[in-house]
Amino acid sequence: MSLTVYRRAHFNAAHRLYKEGWSDEKNLEVFGKCSNPKYHGHNYELEVGLSGEIDPETGFLIDLKKLKEIIKEEVEDPFDHKNLNEEVPEFQNLNPTVENIAIVIWNKLRERLDPKYDISVKLYETPRNFVVYNG
Amino acid sequence: MSLTVYRRAHFNAAHRLYKEGWSDEKNLEVFGKCSNPKYHGHNYELEVGLSGEIDPETGFLIDLKKLKEIIKEEVEDPFDHKNLNEEVPEFQNLNPTVENIAIVIWNKLRERLDPKYDISVKLYETPRNFVVYNG
Amino acid sequence: MSLTVYRRAHFNAAHRLYKEGWSDEKNLEVFGKCSNPKYHGHNYELEVGLSGEIDPETGFLIDLKKLKEIIKEEVEDPFDHKNLNEEVPEFQNLNPTVENIAIVIWNKLRERLDPKYDISVKLYETPRNFVVYNG
Amino acid sequence: MSLTVYRRAHFNAAHRLYKEGWSDEKNLEVFGKCSNPKYHGHNYELEVGLSGEIDPETGFLIDLKKLKEIIKEEVEDPFDHKNLNEEVPEFQNLNPTVENIAIVIWNKLRERLDPKYDISVKLYETPRNFVVYNG
Amino acid sequence: MSLTVYRRAHFNAAHRLYKEGWSDEKNLEVFGKCSNPKYHGHNYELEVGLSGEIDPETGFLIDLKKLKEIIKEEVEDPFDHKNLNEEVPEFQNLNPTVENIAIVIWNKLRERLDPKYDISVKLYETPRNFVVYNG
Amino acid sequence: MSLTVYRRAHFNAAHRLYKEGWSDEKNLEVFGKCSNPKYHGHNYELEVGLSGEIDPETGFLIDLKKLKEIIKEEVEDPFDHKNLNEEVPEFQNLNPTVENIAIVIWNKLRERLDPKYDISVKLYETPRNFVVYNG
Repeated sequence: MSLTVYRRAHFNAAHRLYKEGWSDEKNLEVFGKCSNPKYHGHNYELEVGLSGEIDPETGFLIDLKKLKEIIKEEVEDPFDHKNLNEEVPEFQNLNPTVENIAIVIWNKLRERLDPKYDISVKLYETPRNFVVYNG
Repeated sequence: MSLTVYRRAHFNAAHRLYKEGWSDEKNLEVFGKCSNPKYHGHNYELEVGLSGEIDPETGFLIDLKKLKEIIKEEVEDPFDHKNLNEEVPEFQNLNPTVENIAIVIWNKLRERLDPKYDISVKLYETPRNFVVYNG
Repeated sequence: MSLTVYRRAHFNAAHRLYKEGWSDEKNLEVFGKCSNPKYHGHNYELEVGLSGEIDPETGFLIDLKKLKEIIKEEVEDPFDHKNLNEEVPEFQNLNPTVENIAIVIWNKLRERLDPKYDISVKLYETPRNFVVYNG
Repeated sequence: MSLTVYRRAHFNAAHRLYKEGWSDEKNLEVFGKCSNPKYHGHNYELEVGLSGEIDPETGFLIDLKKLKEIIKEEVEDPFDHKNLNEEVPEFQNLNPTVENIAIVIWNKLRERLDPKYDISVKLYETPRNFVVYNG
Repeated sequence: MSLTVYRRAHFNAAHRLYKEGWSDEKNLEVFGKCSNPKYHGHNYELEVGLSGEIDPETGFLIDLKKLKEIIKEEVEDPFDHKNLNEEVPEFQNLNPTVENIAIVIWNKLRERLDPKYDISVKLYETPRNFVVYNG
Repeated sequence: MSLTVYRRAHFNAAHRLYKEGWSDEKNLEVFGKCSNPKYHGHNYELEVGLSGEIDPETGFLIDLKKLKEIIKEEVEDPFDHKNLNEEVPEFQNLNPTVENIAIVIWNKLRERLDPKYDISVKLYETPRNFVVYNG
């Protein structure tokens, strides 16, 4: 039996793709216009999925109000209207690709959520580019 | 090899989250505004997925017209423009959370569809809250 | 010159279409399954548009945070997770068709917003049925 | 660990569902209006997913610019604004159902992409009918 | 006072852009890949808007079930799963650009709908290209 | 008679809301988190509409390929993956609110497009906040 409950959220942030230790030319060659030193930005759309067993008393897998609050505390509050490279500690030494942002979000949620849940994170950088990370 | 064919459908219904045997205060505490005794409602959006083998003659996994008709008979006709708690027998003693509605739909489709197909049910209660159930 | 700023919001509600003074048969004949006495419901999606002049100091037509708050107070708080017919005073004697709901919302916002703005209300009852009301 | 990166693309094409060797009556009986000999058409929306390991240097699973280019060469250039039955060699003897089109796309991408990636192909024939093929 | 009610519908069709009397080279030069003699196709998405006065008895501008039926008879039945150039009489001598298709639909609806309504037709050829025609 | 043709485009950019001459406290007070000195960003979605007469020879109001190219030159190339405040000359002394960005785009397109067309610009800063500017 497999049941997964999903909740959407979103945040708007600036970033650049950039590998420390590489020259600007090398960064431009690998990351193209995404490496613009002045930054660009995105409306990130997030879907968090939790898999597990339904509680027969309530008919809930999880109380979505609680999941919504945890997403707010772990993702929206620290990431929204921020410069990911400069203001979010997790990306001080980690390139904020959509892959890495999804992994960081997954790790933060993993620490807050009961181990009985499997977690999936779907993160849209644009409507055309997105990732899914399941840990 | 894994091939899945999906068909979308939708129904509009009223419901409340409510556990029989609990006081109104307890229901309100657990289910919040979703437990409003006067009901609220949703446009439920449904995606039914069938996994299996393609028929080499037709190039179909299933004739989608038949799947559409089964979804109409099992879900749209009995659920659309209904009060789920009061008018749909499956929820007489079952809290109509989005989790439980998805499971009920899955069970109804399971009885109608050839066992050679695996079934998945994705049900959106709102564009922000949804579940996937695979049996 | 014409500039309009839009803000989206949403609420989930139960309703039935019903004309007082008509028999149940007449209501059923005119309103079909929408007249179900046990109610059904929708995820209403709302777009409020304000037209006017830009403030040259701020570059804002209006502070969207203020518009968002007014929509919350006038529409989301009183309508969300409610039974429109039974719990929302404006529909005690007014059939909650999508047309009438849009007009009620427009009138409530008109009282709260500076007369220098023209107001438009777009209200989706479903993704397939919606109205625009401009006063 | 499971990480999947997705890229969207699209193409507009004409097709008919048709089994060679069957009479027109038999084709009509099985495929309905989709067998119209004069053709009809669709805006096909495609999501290609690649699963694998992240490159710790770049933070990329794959350079999406390269994936975008491969999709353009293998799918958009040969399929867009084409008659699938008459102009796309893969469908000369293969019924262009959405199932078969997805399998053809998967096979074409499989030949171009590093075997270290698992590939998934999601293909929308309409917003209401779509398939996922994972090889 | 301005109230408009909208109803969505859709049809899938093949077409080519083609001006009779021009050479194939001239057609290709002006219409590009859209002039492919073997046709291509689209999922056309239609939004029909009717503007007018609300009926104070019903709270309806128009009974959407009736509008839905008229759209089915005038647009979906004659256009869906058809080759517009070859099978739809209105395009025998009229290039089926999205502009012309919208005008044809508007004219057909104009004949069926009470003159008290103003009509608008929004037609999406793709999610990226669309027109609005108001007569 | 009123016919309008629309074309969608998009660009991803960083910006901050900021009024020169105001203190940081004043900027924060008026613009909230949007005034973050480290910037944030958005996926801007753009719909450009041109109104006018259809060319009876071609059935086109305008060749959408040409409109697409002009939007690319005037909007996508100079704005995409840029920091609007620091890298786009039009915003050196103009606050890049969504209102002002839409007006700048309209003015740039007005210079490139035949005066026989009326122009409308719809610009989404997020799916929830957007503007329409018609000159």
